[in-house]
Amino acid sequence: MQLQLKTWQFVEDYLKTRTGIIIPIGSTEQHGPTGLIGTDALTAEMVGRGVGEKVGALVAPTISVGMAQHHLDFAGSITLKPTTLIAVVRDNVLSLAKHGFTRFFFVNGHGGNIATVTAAFSEIYAERSMERMSNQPSIKCALRNWWDSPGIKRLSSELYPTGEGSHATASEVALTWYKYPETMDRRVLEPRIAPNGSFADSEDYRRAFPDGRIGSDPSQATPEHGKRFYDQAVEDVARDYEAWVAK
Amino acid sequence: MQLQLKTWQFVEDYLKTRTGIIIPIGSTEQHGPTGLIGTDALTAEMVGRGVGEKVGALVAPTISVGMAQHHLDFAGSITLKPTTLIAVVRDNVLSLAKHGFTRFFFVNGHGGNIATVTAAFSEIYAERSMERMSNQPSIKCALRNWWDSPGIKRLSSELYPTGEGSHATASEVALTWYKYPETMDRRVLEPRIAPNGSFADSEDYRRAFPDGRIGSDPSQATPEHGKRFYDQAVEDVARDYEAWVAK
Amino acid sequence: MQLQLKTWQFVEDYLKTRTGIIIPIGSTEQHGPTGLIGTDALTAEMVGRGVGEKVGALVAPTISVGMAQHHLDFAGSITLKPTTLIAVVRDNVLSLAKHGFTRFFFVNGHGGNIATVTAAFSEIYAERSMERMSNQPSIKCALRNWWDSPGIKRLSSELYPTGEGSHATASEVALTWYKYPETMDRRVLEPRIAPNGSFADSEDYRRAFPDGRIGSDPSQATPEHGKRFYDQAVEDVARDYEAWVAK
Amino acid sequence: MQLQLKTWQFVEDYLKTRTGIIIPIGSTEQHGPTGLIGTDALTAEMVGRGVGEKVGALVAPTISVGMAQHHLDFAGSITLKPTTLIAVVRDNVLSLAKHGFTRFFFVNGHGGNIATVTAAFSEIYAERSMERMSNQPSIKCALRNWWDSPGIKRLSSELYPTGEGSHATASEVALTWYKYPETMDRRVLEPRIAPNGSFADSEDYRRAFPDGRIGSDPSQATPEHGKRFYDQAVEDVARDYEAWVAK
Amino acid sequence: MQLQLKTWQFVEDYLKTRTGIIIPIGSTEQHGPTGLIGTDALTAEMVGRGVGEKVGALVAPTISVGMAQHHLDFAGSITLKPTTLIAVVRDNVLSLAKHGFTRFFFVNGHGGNIATVTAAFSEIYAERSMERMSNQPSIKCALRNWWDSPGIKRLSSELYPTGEGSHATASEVALTWYKYPETMDRRVLEPRIAPNGSFADSEDYRRAFPDGRIGSDPSQATPEHGKRFYDQAVEDVARDYEAWVAK
Amino acid sequence: MQLQLKTWQFVEDYLKTRTGIIIPIGSTEQHGPTGLIGTDALTAEMVGRGVGEKVGALVAPTISVGMAQHHLDFAGSITLKPTTLIAVVRDNVLSLAKHGFTRFFFVNGHGGNIATVTAAFSEIYAERSMERMSNQPSIKCALRNWWDSPGIKRLSSELYPTGEGSHATASEVALTWYKYPETMDRRVLEPRIAPNGSFADSEDYRRAFPDGRIGSDPSQATPEHGKRFYDQAVEDVARDYEAWVAK
Repeated sequence: MQLQLKTWQFVEDYLKTRTGIIIPIGSTEQHGPTGLIGTDALTAEMVGRGVGEKVGALVAPTISVGMAQHHLDFAGSITLKPTTLIAVVRDNVLSLAKHGFTRFFFVNGHGGNIATVTAAFSEIYAERSMERMSNQPSIKCALRNWWDSPGIKRLSSELYPTGEGSHATASEVALTWYKYPETMDRRVLEPRIAPNGSFADSEDYRRAFPDGRIGSDPSQATPEHGKRFYDQAVEDVARDYEAWVAK
Repeated sequence: MQLQLKTWQFVEDYLKTRTGIIIPIGSTEQHGPTGLIGTDALTAEMVGRGVGEKVGALVAPTISVGMAQHHLDFAGSITLKPTTLIAVVRDNVLSLAKHGFTRFFFVNGHGGNIATVTAAFSEIYAERSMERMSNQPSIKCALRNWWDSPGIKRLSSELYPTGEGSHATASEVALTWYKYPETMDRRVLEPRIAPNGSFADSEDYRRAFPDGRIGSDPSQATPEHGKRFYDQAVEDVARDYEAWVAK
Repeated sequence: MQLQLKTWQFVEDYLKTRTGIIIPIGSTEQHGPTGLIGTDALTAEMVGRGVGEKVGALVAPTISVGMAQHHLDFAGSITLKPTTLIAVVRDNVLSLAKHGFTRFFFVNGHGGNIATVTAAFSEIYAERSMERMSNQPSIKCALRNWWDSPGIKRLSSELYPTGEGSHATASEVALTWYKYPETMDRRVLEPRIAPNGSFADSEDYRRAFPDGRIGSDPSQATPEHGKRFYDQAVEDVARDYEAWVAK
Repeated sequence: MQLQLKTWQFVEDYLKTRTGIIIPIGSTEQHGPTGLIGTDALTAEMVGRGVGEKVGALVAPTISVGMAQHHLDFAGSITLKPTTLIAVVRDNVLSLAKHGFTRFFFVNGHGGNIATVTAAFSEIYAERSMERMSNQPSIKCALRNWWDSPGIKRLSSELYPTGEGSHATASEVALTWYKYPETMDRRVLEPRIAPNGSFADSEDYRRAFPDGRIGSDPSQATPEHGKRFYDQAVEDVARDYEAWVAK
Repeated sequence: MQLQLKTWQFVEDYLKTRTGIIIPIGSTEQHGPTGLIGTDALTAEMVGRGVGEKVGALVAPTISVGMAQHHLDFAGSITLKPTTLIAVVRDNVLSLAKHGFTRFFFVNGHGGNIATVTAAFSEIYAERSMERMSNQPSIKCALRNWWDSPGIKRLSSELYPTGEGSHATASEVALTWYKYPETMDRRVLEPRIAPNGSFADSEDYRRAFPDGRIGSDPSQATPEHGKRFYDQAVEDVARDYEAWVAK
Repeated sequence: MQLQLKTWQFVEDYLKTRTGIIIPIGSTEQHGPTGLIGTDALTAEMVGRGVGEKVGALVAPTISVGMAQHHLDFAGSITLKPTTLIAVVRDNVLSLAKHGFTRFFFVNGHGGNIATVTAAFSEIYAERSMERMSNQPSIKCALRNWWDSPGIKRLSSELYPTGEGSHATASEVALTWYKYPETMDRRVLEPRIAPNGSFADSEDYRRAFPDGRIGSDPSQATPEHGKRFYDQAVEDVARDYEAWVAK
């Protein structure tokens, strides 16, 4: 149930019985020599829309550009500054709150978004509690990473005993190849498994991870794996959504 | 050539010969009882990507939420405040400029974006000229509305001698039904042709245009018309893009 | 009826019967080798005040510095960044709205302001609809370029069949010489009629239009022409103001 | 030497020998039942332009709306929020600095501006020292209240042994009547001398000073006094300007 | 080595051999009926200063007010909005970077700060990579929660097999009583162990956790425990600091 | 009565009878070769807390970093940009106002804060009067410099007939040595009394005052003097606080 494919009268009816909405949020950034720049937005969108179908919830347009400062030394990466992303999340939520939505469930495809989106929720709450009268209905926001459930972790351990990694992971690459099989590139990279480690800014990142991957061997991924990740993620995130909106 | 479906190494190669990029920008807002909330983002994306294919240019992720304050009294509409949208445009452009892009061509699907996006370009230029050293390469931004060429105007006059309108237009509705035929709803609305006029804010808009349309009769639209609009828009905008990047 | 020349008690009385106010807005930027840097502010002020006298409306202080990034490569030009100008327009409107004004009519002297001031109106409306309770009275803002009426266009075509141009135009120069005849400089410039074209930022502008003019031959202007432009502009804008506040 | 009445080529020449500029800054706010709402902007402009003539310095357009929150409970008063005014001062200074101006001398007509404009100077300095490379020429800003010299204080003590006051003062009212004698209103108000005291926000101000004046009896003012204040202020401020730019 | 207790010449000497600095950051918010409002700032300050002594590093002034929106329904709690806290962190870092500091190690006392401070680091990096020339030395920021080491976790499990909790924890309360024994209040609260759970904004928090604690029984804490936590935290964080600055 | 050392229930009780709070605000900046970088924050904190004890008022955490742009050319100095400091003051006040505090009394240790903090108060008032409904209780803010009373001025004249100065003053240095005697450094500097004068930005400051002092000879200070300044300042500021909250 994509909001974009509905009419305003449909939404008006929807709000008579439900006030929750799903907002996919991803990033546009390098994912190694074989992963797609859109990986994080595409996977968040796939999972978010799948959950929407499963639970009968509206799904807002995907926020495709997130907080990706640390990837800016690789061509094609785009970032919003954290303060810009906070404003974007805020305006999306406040616009929808005006119509009567009260539960905002962000399905996230990018670890780098977590801090800023969490801060954005606090910004929204702080504005309302510090600057306003108290006669507005209360709203709640939640962020859910599609890769964070026990089901997904079990599946990636099973499929990739080594080389799942933490950026340009085998699982997220698999997910994109499931939806966009024409982009598949199963070349074995050198080194096969990228180094692990931490980083500060984008220069530091590029120095530590010269081809962009962290700890991963994406050549293990297949479209079939992608389908399994997709099914599992939709199931897990849908369960979470339903539990959360019921609270 | 969607940026999202490419790798960073592809982009690095691309930049050796070209520095232009296309950025579709739309809006998420009511389009009358039969038009899609995503109309402006979906059409900008269709045309932007079509142009990218035709001219061999990269196409960045669509900015799906624009400046739609005036639609906020209709359920499902989302807006960014103008200052937020300025920050979004700025961060997209500055991120890509860091990689070496110098020509930013926004393909626009929403009249309400024009003022703010134009202001955003000035914001970018003003920052660079007032706050910075002069050793940065110069950049240029342009905004192109897909519906604004003589070819499109001719086609809509031919197909819809009356009732093209200026919001929820027959032509934009046709374009969405070409791509998403399952959403087609050719109901004749009451009045068949919506009233014309001007408006200030969203309350004023709803008072003047109670079902959301301005001057249009979208029941005239068909998927076949949509294909004709699509082909014409891609041809016209592609020609403009090529002329503009060559300057 | 300049607000600056009235007392607060006068304004309190005025608000018992009327809630409209006129706000002249211009720019401070080069107008070619013979045009005044203040042209756009001075003309907006002249016309705005003339309209105020004619229709009995208060006229707020002129906003003399507008959005003129594209002129920053010519000495003496001043700009506000678009986000600053948005804040200025917003604070002017919200201050006056507190007193009971509800109709804000900006008389504009500078094409480069249009996008940003239009965005500012949306910013004001968006704040009110997204962040506030609904028990505030509704407000409306309008922007009116003094040079945009059929009457003015007819007059400039008649007086300047060629060389009216689009920056440092013969008509605006005439208007300033009507009010400030001591600044008249009817030198014929080289080329007599400046080139036409488009531009991106201020560097690009200076490259394309080396003496600052676009398409104009201001040597045709005379103070007498200026008086005719003044009378016509006041008449046309006054008519528009009265129609607009009555809505 | 009003910047508004000069051409860009004049300014280019000026900058070959001088880099100082005068910027009048005032306010738009109630000045009691008989004082003009524009008093602070009109007096700053008169004095600023007078100084410019005397010392041969360019005078930028007057910033007519300043920080006047405390007057917002009187009709017609307009304020910029302090953060907006900081941005306005900053953009004026940085635009002019781009052309080569390095000394910015603000002639001030409003006590309520002092804190914010002083903060604005620090904002400009802080940006440059924290965010930038050091190869920009150094700039200096100064704020000068026209009423603050020993000469002016002597004159007001002489003319108004009692009832000069601190808002809607006899001296500032005299200055406006010198320039705008048609606005003169020498009515004796009740009480003749307004109360003195301090205040927090605009509600508090109105409670303490019901007709807007603080400590003043403006009925003592005459246009002739105004001329004496004008001459004295121009002389004193001009001396200060010349000493300051020479440093 | 508190920065506040040194002179600028001392700092100048320090920078000849070291470029790291420790910045304690806490919060000012309710910690249940018996815990101090300053708990998070006081503990961050104690540990941060202890580490500074141990490793010979300068310690900047404590940022005592952090992001505590969720506690605003309890009297005395203070929050900065996330965007304000981002600006504070940024200005602290950029000021110190101007002097030559390059490693900024935040010792944190409050879980609610993590998202916003992490976003602040990205804001700093993003500004530098998107807006600036590349000739500035690279900087690195890190955030370290004093309670997060294996050593501390082992100690709290040992001392408090149940009722350590996650807000107004026994361990943090112990730490404050070690330093401020006069504030000790070992009353057993009702219920002895507070409920666990999650929350959205401050209203939601107060509903779920009526006395402010989450999952904790602070009556178990003693000053002697506090000393053990202090020694352990200083040891663990000092080790981390030394490893991190050496990278 | 430090807020940090109280519980939320204590604050709730306090608010039943009183609504005033003291907020110490200082700066972190060079104070010459022998004065402490923390001087202004430490003295504001000492005096603020002393006043709180004397009058039974709560004292919020010290804002230790203020507006110190002009000291940024001396190692160890930290500044907030004025717009950041405005946001900090605003968030502190609005958080506390939510609990019912209505009187905010800032005890200030740094002349350079005066303009910005005064502007911050106006920002708070302006937001409330321009953007909000009127059903919020009115609040008042005041700023009090500890060194500004006749009592303190008398004492410093008595103790330091010459060389009190205006930065790194003998009196403020004495105050810090009273509290932190281990930092005492009574070296006679060269020149014994530093030069006087004015300055623009931090480069200008360093040029004019090479060791950081302005007009002072801090070698005269002693801890015993410090105690006298402390007692006098607490007495004077306490009297002011009590008079002000009673209004």
